[in-house]
Amino acid sequence: MSELKKEQPQLFTTLSPALLNLYDIKNAVVVVIDVLRATSTIAAALHNGAREVIPVDSVQECINIGKQLQAITAGERDGKVAEGLQYGNSPFEYPETFIKGKTLVLTTTNGTKLLHMALSQGAKSIITGSFANLDAVCDYLIQQQQPVMLACAGWKDRVNIEDTLFAGAVIEKIKGHFNIACDSSLVANMLYNEARADLYAFMKNNKASHYLRLSSFGLEKDIMHCMTPNTANVLPVYEQGKLIVKKS
Amino acid sequence: MSELKKEQPQLFTTLSPALLNLYDIKNAVVVVIDVLRATSTIAAALHNGAREVIPVDSVQECINIGKQLQAITAGERDGKVAEGLQYGNSPFEYPETFIKGKTLVLTTTNGTKLLHMALSQGAKSIITGSFANLDAVCDYLIQQQQPVMLACAGWKDRVNIEDTLFAGAVIEKIKGHFNIACDSSLVANMLYNEARADLYAFMKNNKASHYLRLSSFGLEKDIMHCMTPNTANVLPVYEQGKLIVKKS
Repeated sequence: MSELKKEQPQLFTTLSPALLNLYDIKNAVVVVIDVLRATSTIAAALHNGAREVIPVDSVQECINIGKQLQAITAGERDGKVAEGLQYGNSPFEYPETFIKGKTLVLTTTNGTKLLHMALSQGAKSIITGSFANLDAVCDYLIQQQQPVMLACAGWKDRVNIEDTLFAGAVIEKIKGHFNIACDSSLVANMLYNEARADLYAFMKNNKASHYLRLSSFGLEKDIMHCMTPNTANVLPVYEQGKLIVKKS
Repeated sequence: MSELKKEQPQLFTTLSPALLNLYDIKNAVVVVIDVLRATSTIAAALHNGAREVIPVDSVQECINIGKQLQAITAGERDGKVAEGLQYGNSPFEYPETFIKGKTLVLTTTNGTKLLHMALSQGAKSIITGSFANLDAVCDYLIQQQQPVMLACAGWKDRVNIEDTLFAGAVIEKIKGHFNIACDSSLVANMLYNEARADLYAFMKNNKASHYLRLSSFGLEKDIMHCMTPNTANVLPVYEQGKLIVKKS
């Protein structure tokens, strides 16, 4: 049994982007996790038929690429649509009637930065994960049989609960297939098992920092939606600057 | 009640030294945490009458200062006493009969580096914490009524379970007196409450990375001792390059 374990690919978790550089991710599938709300919104937009989502670092870049591609531009700063952009970071803004067939250019504070870090560190492949597409992420990781890095976006490099919970949820589902190789993974998995009965209540009752921040903008509904599994069960993969749906 | 809460000092936790620079610690008491085994050994040596412990970064510095002060030199690399030094990192090496009245110059991989980071970031004061001196740390923090940073040393900047557990144990004891102001603190506190019934068994059963590393060197006894509360209940404070016992 322990022999068998050794042959399984390794799975690591980083609880903050500032820790990603401690790991060699050249052979790894990196799962970029920004549950509130970038990667939840990416899953929603793609699930509802967006042709592609282009993640960019800055508002200006978002405006420029949006013009160039005649695409929808989106992004928030401090809970409001950023000046010069058209839409925000809420998954509810991208129903099928609106987004189908369109390109979305999205700028976010934490998730986009992390994705580009993973890219510059030479990740073998990059996908995005959130509770919205939990099963799609897990199925893909099991199928790939490659080393995995669950990379939490956090908040300005600080650890947050919701991204850690999602890492823990993935680990809970796929740990039979991987060698769980770090304490961060153990911590995430335990936290998830503590919270799994009601993820939203867990965030609220423990006054998670993003619960407090987003609820102060009146976004409880977003939080509840983003903590619900498999509402938009697609697999966004990053290819040539764009997130597109990987067909299984 | 919420008004009252706001007047309490803030308490933060960093799960890795690489995250310490995200926080302004100029008004904070920084608790340097390196449970396996630097801060446990520091508590043991001072509890057993060491005059002072001088934490240094490198083996060479340890040798130089040891010669200069005619002091005991100690430090390990990869589980063995480092070449040129006299003793190791185990609390069992420093009984009263040996260490009383002496100066110990100690080099460790993670804890010392973190202590010097806290110093260079201008921490208001620095103390060291471990389960060995849990109550002394908590009593001091409550008494000070200053902002607190619980700073985990981890392992080469990676998060580890035992330091996170100790942060959680402190939070559990003092949270009525502080405004617990970050998700890392919540995670640590929950992990501790999951583990508190038997901290050693928790480390062993979950295959914590340092359990595996140290037990491979035959050091289960050290792990068990270092996970036991209040075996050396003194308060080491860092003053002018030295850790000395703060008398209450």
